[in-house]
Amino acid sequence: MDATKEVSYTDLMLKRQSVRKFKPDVEISRDEIMTMLKEATTAPSACNLQSWHFVVCNDKAGKQKAHDLVMPFNYPQTDTCSAIIFVLGDTQSHEKYRAVWNKMCDEGRITPEKRDEIFQTFLPLYEHADRDFLVKDSMIDASMVAMQLLLAARAHGYGANPLAGYAADKVVSTFGLDKDRYVPVMAIAIGEPDETPIKSIRYNVDELTDFA
Amino acid sequence: MDATKEVSYTDLMLKRQSVRKFKPDVEISRDEIMTMLKEATTAPSACNLQSWHFVVCNDKAGKQKAHDLVMPFNYPQTDTCSAIIFVLGDTQSHEKYRAVWNKMCDEGRITPEKRDEIFQTFLPLYEHADRDFLVKDSMIDASMVAMQLLLAARAHGYGANPLAGYAADKVVSTFGLDKDRYVPVMAIAIGEPDETPIKSIRYNVDELTDFA
Repeated sequence: MDATKEVSYTDLMLKRQSVRKFKPDVEISRDEIMTMLKEATTAPSACNLQSWHFVVCNDKAGKQKAHDLVMPFNYPQTDTCSAIIFVLGDTQSHEKYRAVWNKMCDEGRITPEKRDEIFQTFLPLYEHADRDFLVKDSMIDASMVAMQLLLAARAHGYGANPLAGYAADKVVSTFGLDKDRYVPVMAIAIGEPDETPIKSIRYNVDELTDFA
Repeated sequence: MDATKEVSYTDLMLKRQSVRKFKPDVEISRDEIMTMLKEATTAPSACNLQSWHFVVCNDKAGKQKAHDLVMPFNYPQTDTCSAIIFVLGDTQSHEKYRAVWNKMCDEGRITPEKRDEIFQTFLPLYEHADRDFLVKDSMIDASMVAMQLLLAARAHGYGANPLAGYAADKVVSTFGLDKDRYVPVMAIAIGEPDETPIKSIRYNVDELTDFA
């Protein structure tokens, strides 16, 4: 399916609802999955570290792994979706930090002075951070990109559901990832909707907002 | 400024960039701020707990408090924005959980059986959770709503910048909030852009993605 890039703010974001049942046997091409991920990664991240990582389950073997990870109440969406994408935080993203900003500088996007300021201001914060800081920082980045992935799926004409109910302690080993580096944050099932989603309610923002 | 609700996916999300310098003396009405927050809270959250909270600094006294919290490299956006909004996680959101789902049921959106299933499946997870779980869960929700707030600002014709550089340990006390309940996640400065933002680069998604 081509991206329907001209979908409006209202349709894209304000009318988004979670879809938990998809038409089975709908395939989304690897190219389109990568396009949606690319679009999602326009999300901002602390110091542009982009502390996120993706594992895509889009074939039978991959979806079986996902099925074995999720809690039973998430079987309906896991078993009918076209792809389920695990979004993880990357606690070691700062180790490639210098290369990114050097490239920005080489391409003339920032001055050498700005680059050096960044190196001296931000980098030590991460190099000297404890694991708890790095885990939380990467979870924020990964959550932001996950939100955009939900919207990207919608812009491409699909429905999606973010899942928190899975065996978080088994995700990294199931996919053969470095357990010291990656932190599971969310799984997102994507496919063609085969239900009318529940219209969930929200609190009034008055109840959630203080003015300083 | 009215919301330009028909802004397209491309303009809203794919072309979003962080703005760090705003036209000073531009006011955004309290109504419009609340509208943007309402739109942002269409974000999903784990079990629809909506574990987020907002503190809006939009007058001189509020912005001074924000200035005193942020690190000096964030003064330019803090000192020129129309409003800076602190987004926090709410680790006690599950305490109003039953009321929300009872309302959903009373309004006929879900069946009593579905409600009871939710109460029996999800609620104990939170009621028996340790603080670390609740903190992380609320940070994910708050990050998702923060991402949507950045997009809402853009849909309303403003620019925005998410800030991680502030004294996180002082946010809750500065705003007189319950320190056992709320966790600072991000601050978002919003205003009318007064600069051409830096076009930041992203990694190729190939480098960030595994197929299971």
